[in-house]
Amino acid sequence: MHIKATLTDGELPRQWYNLAADIPSALLPPLAPDGSILKPEQLSALFPEPLIEQEASMKRWIDIPEEVLEILARWRPTPLVRARNLERLLNTPARIYYKNESISPAGSHKPNTAVPQAYYNKIVGTKRLTTETGAGQWGSALSFASAQFGLECQVFMVRSSYEKKPYRKVMMQTWGASCHPSPSPLTRAGRAVLEEHPDSPGSLGIAISEAVEAALEDTSGATHYALGSVLNHVLLHQTIIGLEAQKQLALFGERRPDTIVACVGGGSNFAGLSFPFIKEKIEGAKIDIVPVEPASCPSMTRGPFAYDFGDTAGMTPLLPMYTLGHEFVPSPSHAGGLRYHGMAPLVSAAARQGLLRPEAISQVECFSAAVQFARSEGIIVAPETSHAVAQVIREAVKAREEKQEKVILFGLSGHGLLDLQGYAEYFAGGIEDIALSEQDLEKSLSSLPKVHAPA
Amino acid sequence: MHIKATLTDGELPRQWYNLAADIPSALLPPLAPDGSILKPEQLSALFPEPLIEQEASMKRWIDIPEEVLEILARWRPTPLVRARNLERLLNTPARIYYKNESISPAGSHKPNTAVPQAYYNKIVGTKRLTTETGAGQWGSALSFASAQFGLECQVFMVRSSYEKKPYRKVMMQTWGASCHPSPSPLTRAGRAVLEEHPDSPGSLGIAISEAVEAALEDTSGATHYALGSVLNHVLLHQTIIGLEAQKQLALFGERRPDTIVACVGGGSNFAGLSFPFIKEKIEGAKIDIVPVEPASCPSMTRGPFAYDFGDTAGMTPLLPMYTLGHEFVPSPSHAGGLRYHGMAPLVSAAARQGLLRPEAISQVECFSAAVQFARSEGIIVAPETSHAVAQVIREAVKAREEKQEKVILFGLSGHGLLDLQGYAEYFAGGIEDIALSEQDLEKSLSSLPKVHAPA
Repeated sequence: MHIKATLTDGELPRQWYNLAADIPSALLPPLAPDGSILKPEQLSALFPEPLIEQEASMKRWIDIPEEVLEILARWRPTPLVRARNLERLLNTPARIYYKNESISPAGSHKPNTAVPQAYYNKIVGTKRLTTETGAGQWGSALSFASAQFGLECQVFMVRSSYEKKPYRKVMMQTWGASCHPSPSPLTRAGRAVLEEHPDSPGSLGIAISEAVEAALEDTSGATHYALGSVLNHVLLHQTIIGLEAQKQLALFGERRPDTIVACVGGGSNFAGLSFPFIKEKIEGAKIDIVPVEPASCPSMTRGPFAYDFGDTAGMTPLLPMYTLGHEFVPSPSHAGGLRYHGMAPLVSAAARQGLLRPEAISQVECFSAAVQFARSEGIIVAPETSHAVAQVIREAVKAREEKQEKVILFGLSGHGLLDLQGYAEYFAGGIEDIALSEQDLEKSLSSLPKVHAPA
Repeated sequence: MHIKATLTDGELPRQWYNLAADIPSALLPPLAPDGSILKPEQLSALFPEPLIEQEASMKRWIDIPEEVLEILARWRPTPLVRARNLERLLNTPARIYYKNESISPAGSHKPNTAVPQAYYNKIVGTKRLTTETGAGQWGSALSFASAQFGLECQVFMVRSSYEKKPYRKVMMQTWGASCHPSPSPLTRAGRAVLEEHPDSPGSLGIAISEAVEAALEDTSGATHYALGSVLNHVLLHQTIIGLEAQKQLALFGERRPDTIVACVGGGSNFAGLSFPFIKEKIEGAKIDIVPVEPASCPSMTRGPFAYDFGDTAGMTPLLPMYTLGHEFVPSPSHAGGLRYHGMAPLVSAAARQGLLRPEAISQVECFSAAVQFARSEGIIVAPETSHAVAQVIREAVKAREEKQEKVILFGLSGHGLLDLQGYAEYFAGGIEDIALSEQDLEKSLSSLPKVHAPA
């Protein structure tokens, strides 16, 4: 019986892996709204110096501070588990492994970056962090991390989620953070929306504007903003997942995975598991690497690669990425963490290089897969994670049909214990797949800013 | 940096520890309702043979089946973590360690016995399990375990909890179980209550009666009943917690704990952590072992030791235990898992031998401690677990005042992510401590059956 690979806290990775150092073609730089190349110092009102350095760094390996490791070590290295019961259920010759990030205090992979972000802010003297959150995973994680370093934390939560998931707010409050439904009367951006639409359900774009404004308006420098995905430094912090998984697969006697699957929204979960393996692929290894997005928000499978804003209001720098257009509004879905119009520039660059094979899956298939997984492996996964599970089942069935022994590794990014309403609606037959029409997509893409990559 | 002790799945304990073999004075036997000594075969309509054997066993070590280990190994051994941030917050010379059972798929220690119970039922040919649940932790765990072995599972959930915690029901449904509010129209016991009180909020006693009846009425033997605490075999299965903790403390270089703290309701969580250490204490070690109960349901600190029924309706055998009387109705509390009138016979026997130092703590102190713990160590604990945290803080503060370096080990029995309503009410100032009056206690104790221990 060998079902799980464990590492001691002494075996935690001591460095993060930076894919920017190895991506064969140069990454395109972010641009200021006027189309000029963004200077790092233009970010200093929002982020502390060490994170701005990491954002632009071309160093391959970056040290993880001891103070960060001490906190991560409470639950890391996370286990790598062989899904024996799922394999039996599917009668597949594939060996399936999952990296279980759901055991963190916040229930997902998000604390992997929330902790270092809070730490770097703490050491430069930041007193308060602001952020936005959609479904609540990121807001919870940053609240948790802020409490560990005695920082205040202010979260703007998309109002429709705030009202549908009241317990996310209680989680944040338990960790000492404040959580406001967005649009809120606390910012100019929020008040402007409320004036026009007093009943606005909010959006991630509006919430970002509020959190950024709340950070910028404190000109003392005591307040910074924190982001949970998309940016290079965020993806960097998540690579601890894949670095651990490499060591753990070796403990199972596996040389490397044939297929890697992870769900993808802004890109941080996918990047965390896959980037260390993309390094192997660049070096010549044969690995099929599959980011899975919701069919309702298919930035990688249906969006063009272009410069676009990170938020709806166009307040952020322009990022080179696959995008559905910053005015894109995905149809409602329980996978709130995947409802983002763009894709992280580093993930986008890897896809452009042909290193990835993106897939998009509809919600009903995902919930059905999640229920199969819960009944065989026991873990009730987050709706986001269910996208990976659905793809893994497709791959395992294919392996059975092709009588092909293969190693599948997937990222179990979070549990769904705060998302059980989605499961309830699934059982009640209340979940339907709404296809994204070409017309709607074209309309949204017409909002893309007219800038071009610098020479 | 060494913050967590990890064991591989190869280092999982291979045997459970049975305290019955070592408890100095003989345990008293359970009695049939007529006062005669219960014969093991009188339990055979409810439980499978291997569990009945374990219930009466005097063997010190009992092998854990490989099939059970394979499932437990997905998350076990659970980590033993040093609470460095809590130590700093309290400025205590004590070294505090917690055994984190919250990372199981169901979020608590309950699967440790749900899995073997489902397994032993599976191998004797049981098709369906019935059980009751109060707050939902046990019902969730048995649903999870039943799914792993392809058993049907029927859960009767106390109606007031069923309505207040709708997501517990969704969890069970996701694992394929059915969950009915109790009293239900599905059983004679339930119908009888509904006839008289159509709006009855239910009670654990009624739910037990329904689950037992549902098992007994299937005379084919295909249906059995499962219990989540109190009985010897349930406590036996939980000892894997303490056996792991012994090995892990050694990895930290600790010889043994000076103080052990765990919350106690029916007794299974407390027994799981403490029994292997009670063995050491019987052999001469000096360990202060503290079960912590809610002040609103103080069976060990205010109840007499007596024979009493396990359920309100008096359908179960009579057990020798500390009890508040089987008609005792504790005041409402968020620690639903601790609202039980009696205490496991094995835990009761250990207390009678002077091996334990029981304490009772009120709810407000417990929530306040839980919030301190969340902000320092990051985990939002279950309301049940908060009782242990409150006692640990008392002990750590005492160690500071007495300038005494000591080792405190406590059981983190579960997370509170399905219990956030309790935290919300605490923050809103809506939680109050209702003292149990002498009068109410006396009234409840007058219901004790008039039987005496056999000579």
